[in-house]
Amino acid sequence: MLPEIQRERIDVVLVSPRNPLNIGAVARAMANFGFTQLTVVAPYEPHWREARSAVGAPELLANARETASLAEAVRNCTLVLGTGTLTHRKAEQPVVRLDNLAPLVAKALGSGKRIALVFGPEKHGLTREDLSFCHILVEIPTDPRQPSMNLGQAAAVGLYELATRVEPTDRSTLLEDRIHPGIATEEPQAAEKPAPTSGNLDILASLIEEVMVAAKYSPATMQEANRHDLRLMLRRLKLSAADGRRALGLFRRILWRLKR
Amino acid sequence: MLPEIQRERIDVVLVSPRNPLNIGAVARAMANFGFTQLTVVAPYEPHWREARSAVGAPELLANARETASLAEAVRNCTLVLGTGTLTHRKAEQPVVRLDNLAPLVAKALGSGKRIALVFGPEKHGLTREDLSFCHILVEIPTDPRQPSMNLGQAAAVGLYELATRVEPTDRSTLLEDRIHPGIATEEPQAAEKPAPTSGNLDILASLIEEVMVAAKYSPATMQEANRHDLRLMLRRLKLSAADGRRALGLFRRILWRLKR
Repeated sequence: MLPEIQRERIDVVLVSPRNPLNIGAVARAMANFGFTQLTVVAPYEPHWREARSAVGAPELLANARETASLAEAVRNCTLVLGTGTLTHRKAEQPVVRLDNLAPLVAKALGSGKRIALVFGPEKHGLTREDLSFCHILVEIPTDPRQPSMNLGQAAAVGLYELATRVEPTDRSTLLEDRIHPGIATEEPQAAEKPAPTSGNLDILASLIEEVMVAAKYSPATMQEANRHDLRLMLRRLKLSAADGRRALGLFRRILWRLKR
Repeated sequence: MLPEIQRERIDVVLVSPRNPLNIGAVARAMANFGFTQLTVVAPYEPHWREARSAVGAPELLANARETASLAEAVRNCTLVLGTGTLTHRKAEQPVVRLDNLAPLVAKALGSGKRIALVFGPEKHGLTREDLSFCHILVEIPTDPRQPSMNLGQAAAVGLYELATRVEPTDRSTLLEDRIHPGIATEEPQAAEKPAPTSGNLDILASLIEEVMVAAKYSPATMQEANRHDLRLMLRRLKLSAADGRRALGLFRRILWRLKR
């Protein structure tokens, strides 16, 4: 079982939920499995108010954070997990089945990361744009004939899995990963380096984009597509926080040169 | 992952569900995780009709079986799993945490058993009487501050666990249980004997009760309590089907003698 102090480092993020019953159901599943940190992105205000004032709503709903964008919601997280099914599209980031997720989350928590578990709107799930903020796409293994889950039930299943199957790690188990690399979910490293937060990656991405424009690297029509690919790439690279700072310094210097 | 043919040997049983939305949610979770066999016990008719006729209701809801009693619903099952939390009572049968359930279910399926996963009404869950038909009480490990789960979410979590964590067993893995008894969930046995169905146990229990009455074993005021204890005991004994037949023969003989 996951210790309480580590559950507090897992944010549940709902992107534009519509149905107040579903919001309530997610909050209830969080309370059932001992999670407390809820963020709601751009909710439909009347329904959001309704969910918060419902009779018997768990306290965590009253304390929920509200943000205008997903970027803002996950700013302080260093591992962002998107949820969804892949029936109608190809994933642009690594896909991990929910029942294989625990070792990866344990490792992230063990190295001090803050994690976000992101759920999309009821109707269509997370968009391609939303997913570009995610390091990993978590897939709940459902029947291909009925792949799409109800939001409250998907949250219950996801949180149950994290609560029961993530075993806390510490330095000694990180060492074990190096001895038995078969168990490791990432390449063994000399030491676990702190990773940049999602917000820091966004700052770097904006700067690189500015450089692209200044360098006339690509036509304006390509700007949106480049922004998307850049976001994905920066999350795939597994930069350390120090790498991020170095890249920031370099691109600032380049930009300054280009604009002279 | 659990093969489809084995999922068909797991019945989902809802005892007196009230809310049509919850019935629909359970059916949806079943469809998501590839389960097809739903039985509803003594439903509130108007709500049951409403749930079945809902737009987008999975096909399995139209094909659901309806019974008057839980005894009838689980008659053909040889392993009956009740669900619930233990906050306010002491269990009268073995309790297994949901995340430890898979090996036990795999073994039961491997020896040809039919299984029922039973959920109680929304308000109070399974009664003591309902639980006396269950071999095992399955507990979803929830936070003691908010232990009670929504019916649709509890079903989703339970079915996700069975679908992803039950690995099919065959003769060779049963053998392995004997070599590594630490893995086995029951005592290792010379061979896996067929178990009596819940219906056969009920027939035996009725007969023993008749014998008790004929023998003036206990006052009429104790009859209900004796019936309850008898039901629990017969499920705890792990009789083989042959043991059951032998006991039936003996008590028939005793009854015939007593009534002469």
